[in-house]
Amino acid sequence: MAVDMKELTALCKRRGFIFQSSEIYGGINGFWDYGPYGVELKNAIKQFWWREIVHTRPDVVGQDASIIMHPTVWKASGHEDGFTDPMVDCRDCKSRFRADQLEEPGKCGSCGSRNMTEVRKFNLMLSTSVGANAESSTTAYLRPETAQAIFVNFKTIQKTSRKKLPFGIAQIGKAFRNEITPRNFTFRSREFEQMEMQYFIDPEDKVDHFSNWAELRKGFFTKLGFPLEKLRFKDHGQELAHYAKRAMDIEFEFPFGWQEVEGIHDRGDFDLTQHAQFAGENMEYFDEDSKRKFVPHVVETSIGADRVTLAVLCEAYSVENLGTEAEPDLRTVLRFKAHIAPVQVAVLPLMKKLSEPAEALERELNAQGFRTEFDVTGQIGKRYRRYDEIGTPYCVTFDFESLEDQAVTVRFRDSMEQVRIPISGLSEWLRKEIHQSMLPSL
Amino acid sequence: MAVDMKELTALCKRRGFIFQSSEIYGGINGFWDYGPYGVELKNAIKQFWWREIVHTRPDVVGQDASIIMHPTVWKASGHEDGFTDPMVDCRDCKSRFRADQLEEPGKCGSCGSRNMTEVRKFNLMLSTSVGANAESSTTAYLRPETAQAIFVNFKTIQKTSRKKLPFGIAQIGKAFRNEITPRNFTFRSREFEQMEMQYFIDPEDKVDHFSNWAELRKGFFTKLGFPLEKLRFKDHGQELAHYAKRAMDIEFEFPFGWQEVEGIHDRGDFDLTQHAQFAGENMEYFDEDSKRKFVPHVVETSIGADRVTLAVLCEAYSVENLGTEAEPDLRTVLRFKAHIAPVQVAVLPLMKKLSEPAEALERELNAQGFRTEFDVTGQIGKRYRRYDEIGTPYCVTFDFESLEDQAVTVRFRDSMEQVRIPISGLSEWLRKEIHQSMLPSL
Repeated sequence: MAVDMKELTALCKRRGFIFQSSEIYGGINGFWDYGPYGVELKNAIKQFWWREIVHTRPDVVGQDASIIMHPTVWKASGHEDGFTDPMVDCRDCKSRFRADQLEEPGKCGSCGSRNMTEVRKFNLMLSTSVGANAESSTTAYLRPETAQAIFVNFKTIQKTSRKKLPFGIAQIGKAFRNEITPRNFTFRSREFEQMEMQYFIDPEDKVDHFSNWAELRKGFFTKLGFPLEKLRFKDHGQELAHYAKRAMDIEFEFPFGWQEVEGIHDRGDFDLTQHAQFAGENMEYFDEDSKRKFVPHVVETSIGADRVTLAVLCEAYSVENLGTEAEPDLRTVLRFKAHIAPVQVAVLPLMKKLSEPAEALERELNAQGFRTEFDVTGQIGKRYRRYDEIGTPYCVTFDFESLEDQAVTVRFRDSMEQVRIPISGLSEWLRKEIHQSMLPSL
Repeated sequence: MAVDMKELTALCKRRGFIFQSSEIYGGINGFWDYGPYGVELKNAIKQFWWREIVHTRPDVVGQDASIIMHPTVWKASGHEDGFTDPMVDCRDCKSRFRADQLEEPGKCGSCGSRNMTEVRKFNLMLSTSVGANAESSTTAYLRPETAQAIFVNFKTIQKTSRKKLPFGIAQIGKAFRNEITPRNFTFRSREFEQMEMQYFIDPEDKVDHFSNWAELRKGFFTKLGFPLEKLRFKDHGQELAHYAKRAMDIEFEFPFGWQEVEGIHDRGDFDLTQHAQFAGENMEYFDEDSKRKFVPHVVETSIGADRVTLAVLCEAYSVENLGTEAEPDLRTVLRFKAHIAPVQVAVLPLMKKLSEPAEALERELNAQGFRTEFDVTGQIGKRYRRYDEIGTPYCVTFDFESLEDQAVTVRFRDSMEQVRIPISGLSEWLRKEIHQSMLPSL
């Protein structure tokens, strides 16, 4: 069944994954909050990215820069002048549009009038004023991307980490864009989180780092549970942004169409050269082997944390009919991979009177580091369905026999099959299962 | 030796822990960036807080709300009218001051003139304008605290998580304050990160939740490595903010004096009542046992992620003289607890020709989830000192004997003692050591 965006959005609200920010005040357009299960899912994805990109790679280090930076950063990067969308107003009904999204150029999308203004540029950066002193206060911007913070810190980090080229700097953090038309749930919002990595290379390096990174990034998506056929790898060819020499998008087929989740860009030396010029700083790297000095080139991988979380939700979501056409019995399941599931293990006593030993088991698994829940409310079948709906891969049922044989029933979310497992080996069994879930899905 | 703030700041810069934001542009006052080791330290502290407060507690759930919220949130909370510092200007030299920080009221702290303006209120919230349409764009604020996002979401999260009172909602996230005088390194900055938890309780509950949380929070600090005598627990007594019924600060003795790192507040029903009124929403909770309806009261624990990271750095920092007074041999050490150390294990081949098996061991430990580094550059003693300076608790040296006996030398950062450990048991040994480091320091 194709994913119905309305149903998914409703599930996200109903089960506390994602809902509108400031909902009790009617919301604020383009801003979203993550509830208890949403924040666990997003954190697990972020931490997995960090592990894959930073912790396991000797050639990549992390950073965490401030959202508000010196305003000249955005002059140098080109954002102050060029980070704009084309806008038109209707002189009759006063509606405003993105010119490139009008069905007919020059015709109001609201009232149909042709009495439209010229197309003007609208800068997408949100600005604020920093500093208490009126005379010296500065107009600053909320960063529209995390990348520039990495370029600006390149020299300091290269020196303090004593890394040699090629090496990368990675960052996870919020960015802001005053989108004219926020839409498609969390896909295009005004506040969002990026996971970016800039890989600094010798321009004469014979290794094709761009293609290597593109390949690695594909691998990341399969480890999150995306089959390759649900992804599209779109090479931009000649259609490139001013900063890019080569670019590829990783697109996912959302219910609202194929859309970019990640971009891989060969940015050349554009950014470092700009900052060298605007800051009057030398951004060259001295290569001890070849005794050459040069401005490194950059291969960037840039992924939206909210977008990939949304893609994971869309890919995981399914509604199955376990009944017949005449008497349907619908089961809603989020088929998250176990390593990113918000709740990995639910421990359920078959009856209330088994609560004590069941909860002790849940506490024990929790202390081992699994994300667990204990739930005693309602009939066991209903509880299974509740955990299907939040994507819990393993429901552990503690029954009367468990008291005798010191074993429990593990019920699999996806197949609904059940196996009996000794309590003494449960933690090790779960660890292996979850570790296994990090392997690419094919 | 007392910690010299200048030396610590220099170390933080030199080893890539923390440095000024946008440094190549001369910096921006009140904004800081975390480099490779800084981000690992701060992330480890954040994740440990999340684990202690959310993951291991069945009665606390997490959330992650947007930084920009509906502007009415800040009317209801009292921030729009009341979140101010008193300011005065000097009419002669045009300097501006926080009135409560002037040495003599009415006298300019810069030129000494008494020709001062009246004291006026200066709002500390940073504002921005959201929305593309000039007529409908809204003045919004960058949140000055994360707490309000939790109050606003209370009903939704209570319902979707099906939690019964008492239960808590926790959040980690950025907040912004336009401080008049940012100072003391990252202690008072304009952009910072909070870790807050609001615990919702029945006002008729006989349990003293405030005292319970105060006790738990003390435990958290000892698990991070603070001895209790380096902390001060200051009950506010009668001196309370308008929202608080009881308040306690946890203070740490920084090199610049005793300062608050965490606050524990009994906020009563102030916030929920305000939002109920401003949003026209019912914020009552129905207690199924007593069949009573009431607005829950709130006990809050609010800790600054940057402040506690800075406190950890100050507490860990020490300079020892391993030589004599006449011929000093200074060793700089960051005595982080192993569980939060940015690099937990450094694997060092004694000589370059041992690189291959040593690096294989490092990769193996890395795959097991330890934060590791491999370093072959320079004489072994120098490498030990380098890892002392970034707070690595275990240096594992692979020597020629290792090839024979399949064992390595582990050198302890703090005692500088060395033990020989079989490679086959190393990972398990390290796991136990690091787990042990989570116990409170006494």
